[in-house]
Amino acid sequence: MLYIIGLGLSDETDVTVKGLQAIKSCERVYLEAYTSVLMVSKEKLEEFYGRELILADREKVESQSDEILLNADTLNVAFLVVGDPFGATTHTDLVLRARELKVPVTIIHNASIMNAVGACGLQLYNFGQTISIPFFTDTWKPDSFYDRIKENKNLGFHTLCLLDIKVKEQSIENLARGKKIYEPPRYMTVNQAIQQLLEIEENRGEQVLEPESLAIGIARLGSATDQLIRAGTLTQLSTQDFGPPLHSLVIVGSKIHSLEVDYMRGFAVDEQSFDELASKYDH
Amino acid sequence: MLYIIGLGLSDETDVTVKGLQAIKSCERVYLEAYTSVLMVSKEKLEEFYGRELILADREKVESQSDEILLNADTLNVAFLVVGDPFGATTHTDLVLRARELKVPVTIIHNASIMNAVGACGLQLYNFGQTISIPFFTDTWKPDSFYDRIKENKNLGFHTLCLLDIKVKEQSIENLARGKKIYEPPRYMTVNQAIQQLLEIEENRGEQVLEPESLAIGIARLGSATDQLIRAGTLTQLSTQDFGPPLHSLVIVGSKIHSLEVDYMRGFAVDEQSFDELASKYDH
Repeated sequence: MLYIIGLGLSDETDVTVKGLQAIKSCERVYLEAYTSVLMVSKEKLEEFYGRELILADREKVESQSDEILLNADTLNVAFLVVGDPFGATTHTDLVLRARELKVPVTIIHNASIMNAVGACGLQLYNFGQTISIPFFTDTWKPDSFYDRIKENKNLGFHTLCLLDIKVKEQSIENLARGKKIYEPPRYMTVNQAIQQLLEIEENRGEQVLEPESLAIGIARLGSATDQLIRAGTLTQLSTQDFGPPLHSLVIVGSKIHSLEVDYMRGFAVDEQSFDELASKYDH
Repeated sequence: MLYIIGLGLSDETDVTVKGLQAIKSCERVYLEAYTSVLMVSKEKLEEFYGRELILADREKVESQSDEILLNADTLNVAFLVVGDPFGATTHTDLVLRARELKVPVTIIHNASIMNAVGACGLQLYNFGQTISIPFFTDTWKPDSFYDRIKENKNLGFHTLCLLDIKVKEQSIENLARGKKIYEPPRYMTVNQAIQQLLEIEENRGEQVLEPESLAIGIARLGSATDQLIRAGTLTQLSTQDFGPPLHSLVIVGSKIHSLEVDYMRGFAVDEQSFDELASKYDH
Protein backbone atom coordinates (compact mmCIF):
# COMPACT_ATOMS: atom_id res chain seq x y z
CA MET A 1 0.00 0.00 0.00
CA LEU A 2 1.17 3.50 -0.83
CA TYR A 3 -0.07 5.96 1.77
CA ILE A 4 -0.05 9.59 0.68
CA ILE A 5 -0.38 11.49 3.92
CA GLY A 6 -0.97 15.17 4.51
CA LEU A 7 1.04 16.61 7.42
CA GLY A 8 -0.93 19.81 7.88
CA LEU A 9 0.60 23.23 8.10
CA SER A 10 2.78 23.84 11.08
CA ASP A 11 4.53 21.21 13.21
CA GLU A 12 4.85 17.49 13.97
CA THR A 13 1.59 17.36 15.94
CA ASP A 14 -0.50 18.49 12.96
CA VAL A 15 -0.53 14.98 11.51
CA THR A 16 -3.85 13.19 12.07
CA VAL A 17 -4.08 10.19 14.39
CA LYS A 18 -4.96 8.11 11.31
CA GLY A 19 -1.93 9.48 9.46
CA LEU A 20 0.41 8.77 12.38
CA GLN A 21 -0.88 5.18 12.65
CA ALA A 22 -0.26 4.69 8.94
CA ILE A 23 3.29 6.13 9.14
CA LYS A 24 4.13 3.74 11.96
CA SER A 25 2.97 0.81 9.79
CA CYS A 26 5.36 1.70 6.95
CA GLU A 27 8.72 0.19 5.97
CA ARG A 28 9.83 3.29 4.10
CA VAL A 29 8.71 6.88 4.69
CA TYR A 30 9.43 9.64 2.13
CA LEU A 31 9.08 13.33 2.90
CA GLU A 32 8.25 15.56 -0.07
CA ALA A 33 10.62 18.43 0.45
CA TYR A 34 10.35 20.86 -2.44
CA THR A 35 6.89 22.42 -2.66
CA SER A 36 6.34 23.39 0.96
CA VAL A 37 7.92 23.05 4.39
CA LEU A 38 6.79 22.60 7.97
CA MET A 39 8.15 24.85 10.70
CA VAL A 40 10.10 22.05 12.39
CA SER A 41 13.21 20.11 11.42
CA LYS A 42 13.34 16.71 9.76
CA GLU A 43 14.93 15.32 12.95
CA LYS A 44 12.00 16.49 15.07
CA LEU A 45 9.56 14.83 12.68
CA GLU A 46 11.58 11.60 12.76
CA GLU A 47 11.59 11.54 16.54
CA PHE A 48 7.83 12.14 16.74
CA TYR A 49 6.88 9.70 13.97
CA GLY A 50 9.33 7.04 15.16
CA ARG A 51 10.56 6.55 11.60
CA GLU A 52 13.53 7.63 9.55
CA LEU A 53 12.50 10.02 6.77
CA ILE A 54 13.91 9.83 3.26
CA LEU A 55 13.92 13.29 1.67
CA ALA A 56 12.25 13.26 -1.74
CA ASP A 57 13.27 16.16 -3.94
CA ARG A 58 11.59 17.06 -7.22
CA GLU A 59 13.92 14.80 -9.20
CA LYS A 60 13.17 11.76 -7.08
CA VAL A 61 9.42 12.26 -7.25
CA GLU A 62 9.23 13.13 -10.93
CA SER A 63 11.92 10.88 -12.44
CA GLN A 64 12.48 8.14 -9.89
CA SER A 65 8.97 7.42 -8.66
CA ASP A 66 9.47 3.70 -9.24
CA GLU A 67 12.03 3.76 -6.44
CA ILE A 68 9.38 5.17 -4.10
CA LEU A 69 6.88 2.57 -5.29
CA LEU A 70 9.30 -0.37 -5.06
CA ASN A 71 7.54 -3.38 -3.49
CA ALA A 72 4.66 -1.18 -2.36
CA ASP A 73 2.29 -3.84 -3.65
CA THR A 74 3.39 -6.09 -0.78
CA LEU A 75 4.59 -3.70 1.93
CA ASN A 76 3.56 -0.28 3.23
CA VAL A 77 5.27 2.86 1.98
CA ALA A 78 4.38 6.41 3.06
CA PHE A 79 4.80 9.57 1.04
CA LEU A 80 4.38 12.59 3.29
CA VAL A 81 3.38 16.00 1.96
CA VAL A 82 3.04 19.27 3.81
CA GLY A 83 -0.60 20.43 3.85
CA ASP A 84 -3.04 18.14 2.04
CA PRO A 85 -2.04 15.63 -0.67
CA PHE A 86 -4.47 17.46 -2.96
CA GLY A 87 -3.73 20.98 -1.84
CA ALA A 88 -1.84 23.48 -3.93
CA THR A 89 0.52 20.88 -5.36
CA THR A 90 -0.85 17.48 -6.19
CA HIS A 91 1.07 14.33 -6.88
CA THR A 92 -1.11 13.08 -9.68
CA ASP A 93 1.82 11.52 -11.54
CA LEU A 94 2.78 9.38 -8.56
CA VAL A 95 -0.78 8.10 -8.12
CA LEU A 96 -1.14 7.36 -11.85
CA ARG A 97 2.17 5.45 -11.82
CA ALA A 98 1.02 3.50 -8.74
CA ARG A 99 -2.18 2.57 -10.59
CA GLU A 100 -0.13 1.29 -13.53
CA LEU A 101 1.94 -0.86 -11.18
CA LYS A 102 -1.23 -2.09 -9.44
CA VAL A 103 -0.09 -0.58 -6.16
CA PRO A 104 -3.10 0.28 -3.99
CA VAL A 105 -3.14 3.90 -2.80
CA THR A 106 -4.72 5.38 0.32
CA ILE A 107 -4.94 9.14 0.75
CA ILE A 108 -5.00 10.62 4.25
CA HIS A 109 -6.16 14.21 4.10
CA ASN A 110 -5.20 17.18 6.22
CA ALA A 111 -5.51 20.95 6.31
CA SER A 112 -3.94 22.93 3.50
CA ILE A 113 -3.52 26.62 2.82
CA MET A 114 -6.44 26.22 0.38
CA ASN A 115 -8.95 25.85 3.22
CA ALA A 116 -7.07 27.17 6.26
CA VAL A 117 -6.82 30.58 4.57
CA GLY A 118 -10.36 31.07 5.90
CA ALA A 119 -8.64 32.00 9.17
CA CYS A 120 -8.08 35.48 7.72
CA GLY A 121 -11.80 36.16 8.08
CA LEU A 122 -12.82 35.98 4.42
CA GLN A 123 -15.31 33.25 3.52
CA LEU A 124 -13.95 30.45 1.31
CA TYR A 125 -17.14 30.74 -0.73
CA ASN A 126 -16.07 34.16 -1.87
CA PHE A 127 -12.68 33.17 -3.24
CA GLY A 128 -12.10 32.85 -6.95
CA GLN A 129 -9.22 31.01 -8.55
CA THR A 130 -6.00 30.63 -6.55
CA ILE A 131 -2.78 31.84 -8.14
CA SER A 132 0.95 31.28 -7.64
CA ILE A 133 3.38 34.17 -7.81
CA PRO A 134 6.88 33.17 -8.97
CA PHE A 135 10.06 35.07 -8.15
CA PHE A 136 10.89 37.62 -10.84
CA THR A 137 14.40 37.54 -12.27
CA ASP A 138 16.11 40.28 -14.25
CA THR A 139 15.08 38.60 -17.48
CA TRP A 140 11.94 36.65 -16.57
CA LYS A 141 8.91 38.50 -15.25
CA PRO A 142 5.85 36.38 -15.96
CA ASP A 143 2.53 38.07 -15.23
CA SER A 144 -0.25 35.86 -16.63
CA PHE A 145 -1.56 35.27 -13.10
CA TYR A 146 -2.50 38.94 -13.03
CA ASP A 147 -5.37 38.12 -15.41
CA ARG A 148 -6.73 35.73 -12.78
CA ILE A 149 -6.74 38.49 -10.14
CA LYS A 150 -8.56 40.69 -12.66
CA GLU A 151 -11.16 38.01 -13.43
CA ASN A 152 -11.71 37.31 -9.74
CA LYS A 153 -12.02 41.03 -9.01
CA ASN A 154 -14.58 41.52 -11.80
CA LEU A 155 -16.70 38.79 -10.21
CA GLY A 156 -16.24 40.32 -6.75
CA PHE A 157 -14.03 37.46 -5.51
CA HIS A 158 -10.98 37.36 -3.29
CA THR A 159 -7.72 35.90 -4.59
CA LEU A 160 -5.39 33.67 -2.61
CA CYS A 161 -1.80 34.18 -3.82
CA LEU A 162 0.63 31.37 -3.05
CA LEU A 163 4.16 32.70 -2.88
CA ASP A 164 7.17 31.09 -4.51
CA ILE A 165 9.55 28.71 -2.76
CA LYS A 166 12.98 27.90 -4.15
CA VAL A 167 14.50 24.86 -2.53
CA LYS A 168 17.53 22.99 -3.89
CA GLU A 169 17.83 25.27 -6.92
CA GLN A 170 21.06 25.61 -8.90
CA SER A 171 22.41 28.88 -10.22
CA ILE A 172 22.52 29.14 -14.01
CA GLU A 173 26.32 29.00 -13.84
CA ASN A 174 26.40 25.83 -11.76
CA LEU A 175 23.68 24.28 -13.89
CA ALA A 176 25.66 25.03 -17.07
CA ARG A 177 28.82 23.56 -15.56
CA GLY A 178 26.93 20.51 -14.32
CA LYS A 179 27.89 21.30 -10.73
CA LYS A 180 25.45 19.95 -8.18
CA ILE A 181 25.86 22.97 -5.93
CA TYR A 182 22.59 24.31 -4.60
CA GLU A 183 21.60 27.83 -3.66
CA PRO A 184 20.28 28.51 -0.15
CA PRO A 185 16.48 28.09 0.03
CA ARG A 186 14.43 31.21 -0.68
CA TYR A 187 10.86 31.92 0.38
CA MET A 188 8.96 34.83 -1.11
CA THR A 189 7.80 37.35 1.48
CA VAL A 190 4.51 39.25 1.48
CA ASN A 191 6.58 42.37 0.83
CA GLN A 192 8.26 40.93 -2.25
CA ALA A 193 4.94 39.70 -3.62
CA ILE A 194 3.37 43.15 -3.25
CA GLN A 195 6.35 44.80 -4.90
CA GLN A 196 6.06 42.46 -7.90
CA LEU A 197 2.28 42.93 -8.17
CA LEU A 198 2.60 46.71 -8.17
CA GLU A 199 5.36 46.47 -10.78
CA ILE A 200 3.00 44.49 -13.02
CA GLU A 201 0.24 47.06 -12.52
CA GLU A 202 2.65 49.83 -13.38
CA ASN A 203 3.61 48.09 -16.62
CA ARG A 204 0.07 47.16 -17.60
CA GLY A 205 -1.88 50.15 -16.27
CA GLU A 206 -5.10 48.15 -15.93
CA GLN A 207 -6.13 49.48 -12.52
CA VAL A 208 -6.64 45.97 -11.18
CA LEU A 209 -4.54 46.77 -8.14
CA GLU A 210 -3.40 50.04 -6.68
CA PRO A 211 -1.35 51.00 -3.64
CA GLU A 212 -4.61 51.54 -1.68
CA SER A 213 -6.11 48.12 -2.53
CA LEU A 214 -7.07 46.07 0.54
CA ALA A 215 -5.14 42.86 1.11
CA ILE A 216 -4.23 40.45 3.89
CA GLY A 217 -0.73 39.23 4.61
CA ILE A 218 -0.47 35.85 6.30
CA ALA A 219 2.61 34.25 7.85
CA ARG A 220 3.05 30.79 9.40
CA LEU A 221 -0.64 29.92 9.06
CA GLY A 222 -1.68 27.16 11.43
CA SER A 223 0.94 27.81 14.08
CA ALA A 224 -0.87 28.20 17.41
CA THR A 225 1.87 30.40 18.82
CA ASP A 226 3.42 32.14 15.86
CA GLN A 227 0.76 32.79 13.22
CA LEU A 228 0.59 36.38 11.98
CA ILE A 229 -2.26 37.90 9.99
CA ARG A 230 -2.36 41.58 9.02
CA ALA A 231 -4.99 43.40 6.96
CA GLY A 232 -4.38 46.72 5.27
CA THR A 233 -3.56 48.46 2.02
CA LEU A 234 -0.81 47.08 -0.19
CA THR A 235 1.26 50.09 0.83
CA GLN A 236 0.72 49.45 4.54
CA LEU A 237 1.49 45.74 4.24
CA SER A 238 4.57 46.33 2.10
CA THR A 239 6.42 47.76 5.09
CA GLN A 240 5.23 45.25 7.73
CA ASP A 241 7.72 42.67 8.95
CA PHE A 242 6.03 39.27 8.65
CA GLY A 243 9.00 37.31 10.00
CA PRO A 244 10.09 33.80 8.95
CA PRO A 245 8.37 31.77 6.17
CA LEU A 246 5.90 30.67 4.90
CA HIS A 247 3.99 33.72 3.73
CA SER A 248 0.81 34.05 1.68
CA LEU A 249 -1.13 37.03 0.40
CA VAL A 250 -4.85 37.50 -0.10
CA ILE A 251 -6.18 40.20 -2.43
CA VAL A 252 -9.58 41.29 -1.14
CA GLY A 253 -12.30 41.18 -3.82
CA SER A 254 -14.52 44.13 -4.76
CA LYS A 255 -17.37 42.80 -2.60
CA ILE A 256 -16.97 42.25 1.16
CA HIS A 257 -19.62 40.91 3.50
CA SER A 258 -20.02 42.91 6.71
CA LEU A 259 -19.08 39.85 8.81
CA GLU A 260 -15.87 39.59 6.79
CA VAL A 261 -15.13 43.24 7.57
CA ASP A 262 -15.79 42.69 11.29
CA TYR A 263 -13.48 39.69 11.38
CA MET A 264 -10.71 41.30 9.33
CA ARG A 265 -10.78 44.43 11.50
CA GLY A 266 -9.17 42.37 14.27
CA PHE A 267 -6.13 42.03 12.00
CA ALA A 268 -6.03 45.62 10.75
CA VAL A 269 -2.65 47.39 10.63
CA ASP A 270 -4.61 50.56 11.34
CA GLU A 271 -8.28 50.26 12.30
CA GLN A 272 -9.34 53.75 11.28
CA SER A 273 -7.96 53.68 7.76
CA PHE A 274 -9.17 50.08 7.43
CA ASP A 275 -12.77 51.09 8.21
CA GLU A 276 -12.63 54.03 5.82
CA LEU A 277 -11.32 51.89 3.01
CA ALA A 278 -13.63 48.92 3.67
CA SER A 279 -16.65 51.23 3.54
CA LYS A 280 -15.80 51.99 -0.11
CA TYR A 281 -16.12 48.33 -1.12
CA ASP A 282 -19.46 46.80 -2.16
CA HIS A 283 -21.37 45.07 0.62
CA MET B 1 -9.05 29.42 25.96
CA LEU B 2 -11.63 28.55 23.33
CA TYR B 3 -10.28 25.88 20.99
CA ILE B 4 -12.09 25.58 17.68
CA ILE B 5 -10.98 22.22 16.37
CA GLY B 6 -11.54 20.65 12.97
CA LEU B 7 -12.30 16.91 13.13
CA GLY B 8 -11.63 16.12 9.48
CA LEU B 9 -13.97 14.21 7.24
CA SER B 10 -14.54 10.63 8.20
CA ASP B 11 -14.03 9.05 11.61
CA GLU B 12 -12.62 9.56 15.11
CA THR B 13 -8.99 9.06 14.00
CA ASP B 14 -9.12 12.00 11.59
CA VAL B 15 -8.53 14.47 14.41
CA THR B 16 -4.95 15.78 14.49
CA VAL B 17 -2.61 14.89 17.33
CA LYS B 18 -2.62 18.58 18.25
CA GLY B 19 -6.41 18.63 18.22
CA LEU B 20 -6.67 15.52 20.38
CA GLN B 21 -4.23 16.96 22.94
CA ALA B 22 -6.31 20.14 23.08
CA ILE B 23 -9.59 18.23 23.54
CA LYS B 24 -8.10 16.29 26.45
CA SER B 25 -7.14 19.58 28.13
CA CYS B 26 -10.71 20.92 28.04
CA GLU B 27 -13.33 21.11 30.78
CA ARG B 28 -16.23 21.25 28.33
CA VAL B 29 -16.33 19.91 24.77
CA TYR B 30 -19.08 20.94 22.33
CA LEU B 31 -19.75 19.12 19.07
CA GLU B 32 -21.28 21.24 16.30
CA ALA B 33 -23.97 18.94 14.97
CA TYR B 34 -25.97 20.73 12.31
CA THR B 35 -23.84 21.61 9.30
CA SER B 36 -22.04 18.31 8.74
CA VAL B 37 -21.57 14.88 10.31
CA LEU B 38 -18.80 12.33 10.71
CA MET B 39 -19.42 8.70 9.79
CA VAL B 40 -19.22 7.50 13.40
CA SER B 41 -21.50 7.90 16.42
CA LYS B 42 -21.17 10.47 19.18
CA GLU B 43 -20.47 7.61 21.61
CA LYS B 44 -17.52 6.41 19.54
CA LEU B 45 -16.09 9.92 19.47
CA GLU B 46 -16.54 10.25 23.24
CA GLU B 47 -14.73 7.00 23.88
CA PHE B 48 -11.82 7.94 21.61
CA TYR B 49 -11.50 11.51 22.85
CA GLY B 50 -11.97 10.52 26.49
CA ARG B 51 -14.45 13.36 26.97
CA GLU B 52 -18.21 13.72 27.13
CA LEU B 53 -19.53 15.67 24.15
CA ILE B 54 -22.24 18.30 24.43
CA LEU B 55 -24.23 18.49 21.19
CA ALA B 56 -24.47 22.05 19.91
CA ASP B 57 -27.35 22.61 17.53
CA ARG B 58 -27.86 25.76 15.48
CA GLU B 59 -29.88 27.41 18.23
CA LYS B 60 -27.19 26.88 20.86
CA VAL B 61 -24.43 28.20 18.61
CA GLU B 62 -26.31 31.16 17.21
CA SER B 63 -28.39 32.29 20.20
CA GLN B 64 -26.68 30.82 23.24
CA SER B 65 -23.02 31.25 22.42
CA ASP B 66 -22.36 32.85 25.79
CA GLU B 67 -23.13 29.48 27.37
CA ILE B 68 -20.39 27.91 25.25
CA LEU B 69 -18.01 30.72 26.15
CA LEU B 70 -18.82 30.67 29.89
CA ASN B 71 -15.59 30.96 31.91
CA ALA B 72 -13.51 30.24 28.80
CA ASP B 73 -11.26 33.11 29.82
CA THR B 74 -10.00 31.01 32.72
CA LEU B 75 -10.54 27.39 31.63
CA ASN B 76 -10.30 25.46 28.37
CA VAL B 77 -13.39 24.87 26.23
CA ALA B 78 -13.43 23.03 22.88
CA PHE B 79 -15.83 23.57 20.04
CA LEU B 80 -15.52 20.70 17.54
CA VAL B 81 -16.55 21.04 13.92
CA VAL B 82 -16.56 18.43 11.19
CA GLY B 83 -14.02 19.29 8.47
CA ASP B 84 -12.08 22.50 9.05
CA PRO B 85 -13.25 25.37 11.29
CA PHE B 86 -13.04 27.59 8.21
CA GLY B 87 -14.37 25.16 5.66
CA ALA B 88 -17.77 25.46 4.07
CA THR B 89 -19.41 26.75 7.24
CA THR B 90 -17.50 29.11 9.42
CA HIS B 91 -18.24 30.13 12.95
CA THR B 92 -17.35 33.76 12.60
CA ASP B 93 -20.03 34.88 15.07
CA LEU B 94 -18.64 32.67 17.81
CA VAL B 95 -15.10 33.99 17.31
CA LEU B 96 -16.30 37.62 17.23
CA ARG B 97 -18.28 37.07 20.44
CA ALA B 98 -15.22 35.48 22.06
CA ARG B 99 -13.15 38.53 21.09
CA GLU B 100 -15.75 40.81 22.74
CA LEU B 101 -15.57 38.76 25.93
CA LYS B 102 -11.74 38.79 25.78
CA VAL B 103 -11.66 35.01 25.49
CA PRO B 104 -8.51 33.90 23.66
CA VAL B 105 -9.20 31.66 20.66
CA THR B 106 -6.99 28.99 19.09
CA ILE B 107 -7.94 27.41 15.77
CA ILE B 108 -6.78 23.86 15.00
CA HIS B 109 -7.17 23.18 11.30
CA ASN B 110 -8.02 19.97 9.49
CA ALA B 111 -9.06 18.72 6.08
CA SER B 112 -12.36 19.91 4.67
CA ILE B 113 -14.33 19.09 1.57
CA MET B 114 -13.00 22.38 0.17
CA ASN B 115 -9.49 20.94 -0.26
CA ALA B 116 -10.03 17.17 -0.07
CA VAL B 117 -12.24 17.39 -3.18
CA GLY B 118 -8.94 17.33 -5.08
CA ALA B 119 -9.12 13.54 -4.57
CA CYS B 120 -11.49 13.42 -7.57
CA GLY B 121 -8.56 14.21 -9.85
CA LEU B 122 -9.40 17.82 -10.70
CA GLN B 123 -6.87 20.42 -9.62
CA LEU B 124 -8.00 22.80 -6.88
CA TYR B 125 -6.47 25.62 -8.93
CA ASN B 126 -9.11 25.05 -11.58
CA PHE B 127 -12.13 25.37 -9.32
CA GLY B 128 -14.24 28.49 -9.33
CA GLN B 129 -16.67 29.50 -6.62
CA THR B 130 -18.17 26.75 -4.48
CA ILE B 131 -21.97 26.55 -4.27
CA SER B 132 -24.53 24.97 -1.94
CA ILE B 133 -27.61 23.26 -3.34
CA PRO B 134 -30.61 23.36 -0.99
CA PHE B 135 -33.47 20.85 -1.03
CA PHE B 136 -36.32 22.02 -3.26
CA THR B 137 -39.79 22.02 -1.76
CA ASP B 138 -43.09 22.20 -3.66
CA THR B 139 -43.19 25.93 -3.15
CA TRP B 140 -39.53 26.93 -2.80
CA LYS B 141 -37.12 26.26 -5.62
CA PRO B 142 -34.23 28.70 -5.32
CA ASP B 143 -31.80 28.68 -8.24
CA SER B 144 -29.46 31.64 -7.84
CA PHE B 145 -26.52 29.22 -7.39
CA TYR B 146 -27.03 28.26 -11.03
CA ASP B 147 -25.54 31.64 -12.01
CA ARG B 148 -22.36 30.66 -10.19
CA ILE B 149 -22.08 27.43 -12.21
CA LYS B 150 -22.57 29.51 -15.35
CA GLU B 151 -19.90 32.04 -14.34
CA ASN B 152 -17.46 29.26 -13.46
CA LYS B 153 -18.18 27.48 -16.73
CA ASN B 154 -17.62 30.64 -18.78
CA LEU B 155 -14.18 30.94 -17.16
CA GLY B 156 -13.47 27.25 -17.76
CA PHE B 157 -13.64 26.37 -14.04
CA HIS B 158 -15.01 23.38 -12.19
CA THR B 159 -17.74 23.85 -9.58
CA LEU B 160 -17.91 22.06 -6.25
CA CYS B 161 -21.54 21.64 -5.18
CA LEU B 162 -22.14 21.07 -1.47
CA LEU B 163 -25.39 19.21 -0.95
CA ASP B 164 -28.02 20.11 1.62
CA ILE B 165 -28.26 18.54 5.05
CA LYS B 166 -31.39 18.80 7.17
CA VAL B 167 -30.75 17.91 10.78
CA LYS B 168 -33.17 18.64 13.63
CA GLU B 169 -35.68 20.38 11.36
CA GLN B 170 -39.32 20.84 12.30
CA SER B 171 -42.21 20.38 9.89
CA ILE B 172 -44.17 23.56 9.13
CA GLU B 173 -47.12 22.09 11.08
CA ASN B 174 -45.06 21.34 14.18
CA LEU B 175 -43.32 24.69 13.92
CA ALA B 176 -46.71 26.49 13.72
CA ARG B 177 -47.99 24.58 16.72
CA GLY B 178 -44.81 25.21 18.67
CA LYS B 179 -44.16 21.50 19.00
CA LYS B 180 -40.50 20.61 19.40
CA ILE B 181 -40.84 17.47 17.31
CA TYR B 182 -38.07 17.02 14.78
CA GLU B 183 -38.09 15.36 11.38
CA PRO B 184 -35.61 12.53 10.69
CA PRO B 185 -32.30 13.85 9.30
CA ARG B 186 -32.08 14.13 5.50
CA TYR B 187 -28.97 14.25 3.37
CA MET B 188 -29.18 15.21 -0.31
CA THR B 189 -27.90 12.52 -2.64
CA VAL B 190 -25.92 13.05 -5.83
CA ASN B 191 -29.01 11.80 -7.68
CA GLN B 192 -31.31 14.37 -6.10
CA ALA B 193 -28.83 17.17 -6.79
CA ILE B 194 -28.62 16.22 -10.48
CA GLN B 195 -32.41 16.04 -10.76
CA GLN B 196 -32.74 19.54 -9.31
CA LEU B 197 -30.00 20.97 -11.53
CA LEU B 198 -31.59 19.55 -14.68
CA GLU B 199 -34.96 20.92 -13.56
CA ILE B 200 -33.43 24.38 -13.27
CA GLU B 201 -31.85 24.05 -16.72
CA GLU B 202 -35.21 23.00 -18.15
CA ASN B 203 -36.89 26.06 -16.65
CA ARG B 204 -34.17 28.49 -17.67
CA GLY B 205 -33.04 27.02 -20.99
CA GLU B 206 -29.56 28.55 -20.70
CA GLN B 207 -27.58 25.50 -21.82
CA VAL B 208 -25.29 25.75 -18.82
CA LEU B 209 -25.82 22.06 -18.06
CA GLU B 210 -27.22 19.28 -20.18
CA PRO B 211 -27.75 15.57 -19.59
CA GLU B 212 -24.41 14.86 -21.28
CA SER B 213 -22.38 17.29 -19.13
CA LEU B 214 -19.44 15.68 -17.35
CA ALA B 215 -19.59 15.58 -13.58
CA ILE B 216 -18.17 13.67 -10.64
CA GLY B 217 -20.22 12.21 -7.81
CA ILE B 218 -18.42 11.81 -4.49
CA ALA B 219 -19.61 9.90 -1.42
CA ARG B 220 -18.02 9.58 2.02
CA LEU B 221 -14.91 11.50 1.00
CA GLY B 222 -11.96 10.76 3.27
CA SER B 223 -13.06 7.30 4.33
CA ALA B 224 -10.16 4.93 3.65
CA THR B 225 -12.49 1.97 3.22
CA ASP B 226 -15.73 3.37 1.98
CA GLN B 227 -15.07 6.40 -0.23
CA LEU B 228 -16.79 6.31 -3.62
CA ILE B 229 -15.96 8.53 -6.59
CA ARG B 230 -17.65 8.16 -9.97
CA ALA B 231 -17.14 10.26 -13.10
CA GLY B 232 -19.61 10.38 -15.96
CA THR B 233 -22.42 12.32 -17.57
CA LEU B 234 -25.19 13.73 -15.40
CA THR B 235 -27.45 11.05 -16.90
CA GLN B 236 -25.04 8.25 -16.04
CA LEU B 237 -24.49 9.52 -12.48
CA SER B 238 -28.20 10.06 -11.89
CA THR B 239 -28.78 6.30 -11.80
CA GLN B 240 -25.68 5.31 -9.77
CA ASP B 241 -26.19 4.24 -6.17
CA PHE B 242 -23.78 6.26 -4.06
CA GLY B 243 -24.82 4.70 -0.76
CA PRO B 244 -24.97 6.42 2.65
CA PRO B 245 -24.15 10.14 3.18
CA LEU B 246 -22.39 12.51 2.79
CA HIS B 247 -22.47 13.17 -0.92
CA SER B 248 -21.00 15.97 -3.03
CA LEU B 249 -21.09 16.77 -6.72
CA VAL B 250 -18.50 18.38 -8.96
CA ILE B 251 -19.48 19.95 -12.28
CA VAL B 252 -16.50 19.66 -14.62
CA GLY B 253 -15.56 23.00 -16.22
CA SER B 254 -15.25 23.62 -19.95
CA LYS B 255 -11.46 23.21 -19.82
CA ILE B 256 -9.82 20.00 -18.58
CA HIS B 257 -6.09 19.38 -18.32
CA SER B 258 -4.96 16.03 -19.76
CA LEU B 259 -3.63 14.92 -16.35
CA GLU B 260 -7.09 15.62 -14.93
CA VAL B 261 -8.60 13.42 -17.64
CA ASP B 262 -6.14 10.60 -16.90
CA TYR B 263 -6.89 10.74 -13.21
CA MET B 264 -10.67 10.97 -13.61
CA ARG B 265 -10.68 8.04 -16.02
CA GLY B 266 -9.95 5.75 -13.07
CA PHE B 267 -13.36 6.77 -11.68
CA ALA B 268 -15.31 6.58 -14.96
CA VAL B 269 -18.71 4.88 -14.92
CA ASP B 270 -17.92 3.89 -18.50
CA GLU B 271 -14.39 4.46 -19.83
CA GLN B 272 -15.26 4.54 -23.51
CA SER B 273 -18.01 7.14 -23.32
CA PHE B 274 -15.90 9.07 -20.82
CA ASP B 275 -12.99 9.33 -23.26
CA GLU B 276 -15.28 10.35 -26.11
CA LEU B 277 -16.90 13.05 -24.05
CA ALA B 278 -13.68 14.32 -22.44
CA SER B 279 -12.13 14.74 -25.90
CA LYS B 280 -14.81 17.33 -26.71
CA TYR B 281 -13.73 19.58 -23.82
CA ASP B 282 -11.00 22.21 -24.21
CA HIS B 283 -7.55 21.08 -23.16
